[in-house]
Amino acid sequence: MHSLTIDEQIAYLSKGFSEIIRVEDLKTRLLEAAKVGRPLRVKAGFDPTAPDLHLGHTVLIRKMKHFQDLGHTAIFLIGDMTGLIGDPSGRNLTRPPMTREQIAANAETYRQQIFKLLDPAKTEIRFNSEWLEPLGFEPMVRLCSHYTVARLLERDDFTKRYREGSPISLHEFLYPVSQGYDSVALRADVELGGTDQKFNLLVGREIQKAYGQPPQIVATTPLLEGLDGVQKMSKSLANYVGITEAPAEMFKKLMSISDELMWRYYEMLTDLSIPEIAVLRQRVEAGEAHPMESKIALARRIIGDFHTAAEAEAAAGEFNRVVRQGQAPSDLETIDLPEGVLMDGHVRVDKLLAKTGMAPSVSEAVRRLKANAVEINGEKVVDLKYTPNSPELLVQSGKQWRRVRL
Amino acid sequence: MHSLTIDEQIAYLSKGFSEIIRVEDLKTRLLEAAKVGRPLRVKAGFDPTAPDLHLGHTVLIRKMKHFQDLGHTAIFLIGDMTGLIGDPSGRNLTRPPMTREQIAANAETYRQQIFKLLDPAKTEIRFNSEWLEPLGFEPMVRLCSHYTVARLLERDDFTKRYREGSPISLHEFLYPVSQGYDSVALRADVELGGTDQKFNLLVGREIQKAYGQPPQIVATTPLLEGLDGVQKMSKSLANYVGITEAPAEMFKKLMSISDELMWRYYEMLTDLSIPEIAVLRQRVEAGEAHPMESKIALARRIIGDFHTAAEAEAAAGEFNRVVRQGQAPSDLETIDLPEGVLMDGHVRVDKLLAKTGMAPSVSEAVRRLKANAVEINGEKVVDLKYTPNSPELLVQSGKQWRRVRL
Repeated sequence: MHSLTIDEQIAYLSKGFSEIIRVEDLKTRLLEAAKVGRPLRVKAGFDPTAPDLHLGHTVLIRKMKHFQDLGHTAIFLIGDMTGLIGDPSGRNLTRPPMTREQIAANAETYRQQIFKLLDPAKTEIRFNSEWLEPLGFEPMVRLCSHYTVARLLERDDFTKRYREGSPISLHEFLYPVSQGYDSVALRADVELGGTDQKFNLLVGREIQKAYGQPPQIVATTPLLEGLDGVQKMSKSLANYVGITEAPAEMFKKLMSISDELMWRYYEMLTDLSIPEIAVLRQRVEAGEAHPMESKIALARRIIGDFHTAAEAEAAAGEFNRVVRQGQAPSDLETIDLPEGVLMDGHVRVDKLLAKTGMAPSVSEAVRRLKANAVEINGEKVVDLKYTPNSPELLVQSGKQWRRVRL
Repeated sequence: MHSLTIDEQIAYLSKGFSEIIRVEDLKTRLLEAAKVGRPLRVKAGFDPTAPDLHLGHTVLIRKMKHFQDLGHTAIFLIGDMTGLIGDPSGRNLTRPPMTREQIAANAETYRQQIFKLLDPAKTEIRFNSEWLEPLGFEPMVRLCSHYTVARLLERDDFTKRYREGSPISLHEFLYPVSQGYDSVALRADVELGGTDQKFNLLVGREIQKAYGQPPQIVATTPLLEGLDGVQKMSKSLANYVGITEAPAEMFKKLMSISDELMWRYYEMLTDLSIPEIAVLRQRVEAGEAHPMESKIALARRIIGDFHTAAEAEAAAGEFNRVVRQGQAPSDLETIDLPEGVLMDGHVRVDKLLAKTGMAPSVSEAVRRLKANAVEINGEKVVDLKYTPNSPELLVQSGKQWRRVRL
């Protein structure tokens, strides 16, 4: 990808960002760096608590990858010191400080996840304790002298809280300037972050100037919508896909999204270019391709980033068999026949459905039987009493399956 | 003075303060400390640039002394770290940091001056670099978490500047909380400061509470009026008396103050109690004592604090001789006869007065001669020509004296 023209590079790098401040500066910086054969230093900061990453996080990490694809250095910064400041409630401060071992363990967790996307050879994993811990009182005072209270109060949440009379602790003001100092310490050319980080990223530009460095280019990624297509992807909203989830689970979740969200995910969660995605979309809209096929292709592509291609393919096959062809899932467990179901040599099917959780109640089970919606060992069952002719029953009601041992 | 009742102690300690927050707390703290035989720790902070102290500074130092008089410990805190923050213009920050040698030299300068009032045995001289320098990023963040931006903006000058749109650099917000942390590190029972320090001293109370210490009692001293009786005493306004000035110079300056200011100086610059001063004042107002005598007594008292009693007495005698009895000052220098003054064996007195600066012009000198306002060697001179009969001339015109060698 090194042979791309500068405009092609800009197009590749720009994809998916909400805003770049400024594209012209990025162009200049790319040209300057190319002239002396120097890779750009592209910084993004992460919380030290090492969450299990979900696809929402990968939007940013993928943009780091795109810079790597063009030969640049991604700096994965773990904010182990600034993490102390994060929470406005002060909760972070009362929690016992992380030990070096915990931090190292969390870094390892990150490493296992991010290197599914990033190239280790072009990645620096850094901790801001490296320069913040030994900073000292005087350099800290000096750092704080480079930014004004009024400008800090311009940050949306600070403005709002100050106006409302909600307390802002002084330590919260240290966050943006310390983050800015990280850029100085790392000599960052570019800093990436979510749109909610825009203010802090811009502070970094001012702090770098104060320390005699050219200001970093700032690029922000949008928040990714969750599976519901409305709210941002978040663990607490249960609308996420974790990158360590099993392929089959990921597949099932991704197949549940709307067609519209699918195109958004193509943009934010794959390396396909905007024109390539446009072609796919056009084919679907012209009726030349089925949306379901495009969605399966998307799911396979995404799963392939975090698992092997073979696993992605297996998950697709599994999904196809269960959902599209009505076959029992291959990993279905065998359970024992619940008590009180076998009576006088025959199985009470209504009770079986209720006791294995396939139906919410016996009456609902009866309704399903009457609606021809229950199969045992591949045959429709309508009678309440079923006389088994094998040691195992494969029971199906809609998309639900149970394998029951007699 | 240890045998004073608690109310007498409070009266002695309260004298001269603008405000004590709160007297009741001071009383309680005094009683508690007395019970366990523990001296109170009384802190006052000073700038590390070690100015030549003038009487304005001694108001605060004298209050430290008063606590010492009752057996307590005065902590003379040199803000070598917080001094970095002081200047809103940021000038302090661009000036090269003081070396350890400079700080030690400045401390020595302070020592030479303050121990004229303070008892070295009951004084701790401390530097806040002792605890601020090794503080580190995390404890600094923790410290800043104990105070809010909104409360800092309530400080008069911050409110005003924020409203006016004058920049407040973030490092200026670090000052009050760091000063508060000094009180924690020193376990201060009481902090003294000028009225302009009230906000910062009160922050100290909150910071101490956050660190589990009982909040310090805060006591503020008023700004002392300068010799003009109007503006605050200040070197730049040239209305000051430096404590290292020569006794005669101090005497002359102190005798120039108004009678009203004299009583103020009695209160702020001596150890006399309010009732004792009231008695003196009453005697003057009843015509039983001359104001000039009270002023001389004040000057002797003040000078005696910074020089020996003998020097104070000599200065008083000198003042008496020169100003009140018209005698030549004892330390008058001998100067050479200016050129062009000796003509044909006699001295042209008009030219002598003009050339030695005793008269602004020859014509003014002539006027003075005619007005019988000039004496040479104790005799009135009216003639322009004076025939000398000794190798030296002691020339007087009003309060001006010259000793001229022929």
